[in-house]
Amino acid sequence: MNKNFDLKSTSGQARAGVLKTRRGEVQTPFFMSVATRAAIKAGVGMEDLEAIEAPVVLCNTYHLHLKPGEALVEKMGGLHEFMKCDKPMLTDSGGFQVFSIKRKKITDEGVWFNSHIDGKRIWIDAERSIDIQHKLGADMIMAFDECPPSRLQNPMEPPTNPAELKGWKRRQERKLYFKIRTAVERTTAWAKRSIDAHAAKYDLSLPPTQRPQLFGIVQGGCFKDLREQSLKEITALPFDGFALGGLAVGEPSEAMYKVLDEIAEKLPADKPRYLMGVGSPKDLIEAVARGIDMFDCVFPARNARHGTAYTWNGELRITNQEFEASTDVLDVSCGCPVCQNGKGYTRAYLRHLMTVDEELGKRFMTIHNLAFYHDLMRTMREQIMADNFEPWKAAALVKL
Amino acid sequence: MNKNFDLKSTSGQARAGVLKTRRGEVQTPFFMSVATRAAIKAGVGMEDLEAIEAPVVLCNTYHLHLKPGEALVEKMGGLHEFMKCDKPMLTDSGGFQVFSIKRKKITDEGVWFNSHIDGKRIWIDAERSIDIQHKLGADMIMAFDECPPSRLQNPMEPPTNPAELKGWKRRQERKLYFKIRTAVERTTAWAKRSIDAHAAKYDLSLPPTQRPQLFGIVQGGCFKDLREQSLKEITALPFDGFALGGLAVGEPSEAMYKVLDEIAEKLPADKPRYLMGVGSPKDLIEAVARGIDMFDCVFPARNARHGTAYTWNGELRITNQEFEASTDVLDVSCGCPVCQNGKGYTRAYLRHLMTVDEELGKRFMTIHNLAFYHDLMRTMREQIMADNFEPWKAAALVKL
Repeated sequence: MNKNFDLKSTSGQARAGVLKTRRGEVQTPFFMSVATRAAIKAGVGMEDLEAIEAPVVLCNTYHLHLKPGEALVEKMGGLHEFMKCDKPMLTDSGGFQVFSIKRKKITDEGVWFNSHIDGKRIWIDAERSIDIQHKLGADMIMAFDECPPSRLQNPMEPPTNPAELKGWKRRQERKLYFKIRTAVERTTAWAKRSIDAHAAKYDLSLPPTQRPQLFGIVQGGCFKDLREQSLKEITALPFDGFALGGLAVGEPSEAMYKVLDEIAEKLPADKPRYLMGVGSPKDLIEAVARGIDMFDCVFPARNARHGTAYTWNGELRITNQEFEASTDVLDVSCGCPVCQNGKGYTRAYLRHLMTVDEELGKRFMTIHNLAFYHDLMRTMREQIMADNFEPWKAAALVKL
Repeated sequence: MNKNFDLKSTSGQARAGVLKTRRGEVQTPFFMSVATRAAIKAGVGMEDLEAIEAPVVLCNTYHLHLKPGEALVEKMGGLHEFMKCDKPMLTDSGGFQVFSIKRKKITDEGVWFNSHIDGKRIWIDAERSIDIQHKLGADMIMAFDECPPSRLQNPMEPPTNPAELKGWKRRQERKLYFKIRTAVERTTAWAKRSIDAHAAKYDLSLPPTQRPQLFGIVQGGCFKDLREQSLKEITALPFDGFALGGLAVGEPSEAMYKVLDEIAEKLPADKPRYLMGVGSPKDLIEAVARGIDMFDCVFPARNARHGTAYTWNGELRITNQEFEASTDVLDVSCGCPVCQNGKGYTRAYLRHLMTVDEELGKRFMTIHNLAFYHDLMRTMREQIMADNFEPWKAAALVKL
């Protein structure tokens, strides 16, 4: 009763389970639809999310703090009431966006940064992040972490002399290592402060289905020892779930898979595991194979708006000439409101809409791509339940 | 059986009737949702139009001719199949857009103009317009007309000497008169050619519920004698319905009402009457009061995208500070998917979406404004059926 995660089945390292929140249960693995500013982009509405059985919605703390502000959202009854969303919701800590901003000042206490909207100087730290998230009112909230880049942001020009290059690379790597080590240390300190701030408002002895759940974030870049240090420190704290942060931030997919190989199975088996900001269909499959349960990413929606549709036979560029008079739907096996199992909108119509830049085209493409992602997660769950994940994965990766 | 319009009731000059098309019956008066490029703007979908009981959809021949081209639409089975729209549809003749283009060459034969997309030189005349519309496949199509501006496009600077001003104005008026007289003559000639082109493809002795209907357009600007000449010439031709064109093109509303006073009741009583490109809620009410049955206008959708919502208590600017924390819906008496009779999205949420430029805000505002327009038309029909139009009108205009 005091658990928020039931493991139902495994297939290799892949896990199928149930995440229990105060707004209902969610079958894992799952993908979260990103509603950055309390709306899915391209005009996709809650009724569209219903139609594609989107399980969980993610909103971004940084953007909502700037506009409309957490005070207003709280006054309006929280994000669920504000957006008319009855699905479980998760908010990030705002850290990822803040650390993406060029002009910022990071100290052990927190971060000063300038709003991208009006340049206003804003302070954020663990206590503030948790307070904002409490006011937004999501069912799962994230500890405030330092999310460093996977590469140095202002590396010196590499030397042209090949003899010097090796030493230069080693020095760069050392610099990055120390930067990430500092981030790991801060992340642990801020994780403790996040828990304290959460406990100050919610009785953490209450079952996690009766309060917002707090997830901790493991940092460490692609350095095995730093990942292990962070994992050890973060998982020692009484979080409701654990996320891997600082991945999918520019490093090659193979580097990310290596970190997952080294780290994922060491995450507590009785808690949900969340890989933040990931990713392509291939990334999702590889990460589920390594034991991850939860994902979020702007890819499917952003690619949709830019004209790329996902199908079970791979990606397609809807604006390509070849689809000019195509009576096919995007994916005949897709039951989304756009494809309607083959009876929906043709590629020719979608191509027309995207070519003339009609918003309806972007909305349709987004609905389909999100539907595909949710379909992919449900399919993976079925294959895990049938203990057939590896054979399925091998076949799926040939096409996707 | 061979009629496409049944007059059910009148209240003063206002008419309630039934327009019969090959895709079903429509209760008049009605407003058409504008789907310029085979889509309602702002991502509004067919399911949204269903939800607000939009009766008829209008597409623009000019835009569809340029992209994706009528040949493709025909190949895809026509607009209904292309857009997955089972409502009656109307296409305009393309004339209005062509005559809005600055660089064009009009002759008695037709018009040369340059595409606004790529500058390509294109010829359009009555035969071509009807052929394009046949291929697009709407249920009601429009004759090709010359739609002149309500004012001279390049008038000379008015003289600064007041003594000369009166003469100058008279000369400008004469110039405009001759321009519009030419347009009236061409419109009649092109109307005949439009009918011939239509008859070459469809047997006009067939009931209008078994073929596309062809509407004629009366021109004449704000000159009573020219309007009467055009009306006499156009209504002498075997059209299925009659439109008033060349109004709502910049003249004051009062000038338009005067033309309607002079002309509308002389339109055949047994055919539908269509006032093209109109208008504001007030314009719709004043025109229905003068016996008009059909309308189309980009106003409600464009204003929605720019933040103005229509309600039964008048317009509201959703981005106004006063709505920052408003828990009201746009209009508590509105049953649209956005308002849900008071249980829908708050003004605060819509204000947030519009403030941060989320497409969902534009989509919601558009759905609501179109719903309001359709609601307004249904209300007017009820008041006509109850022979209570004038008292209702007087009360409604105080608020709208």
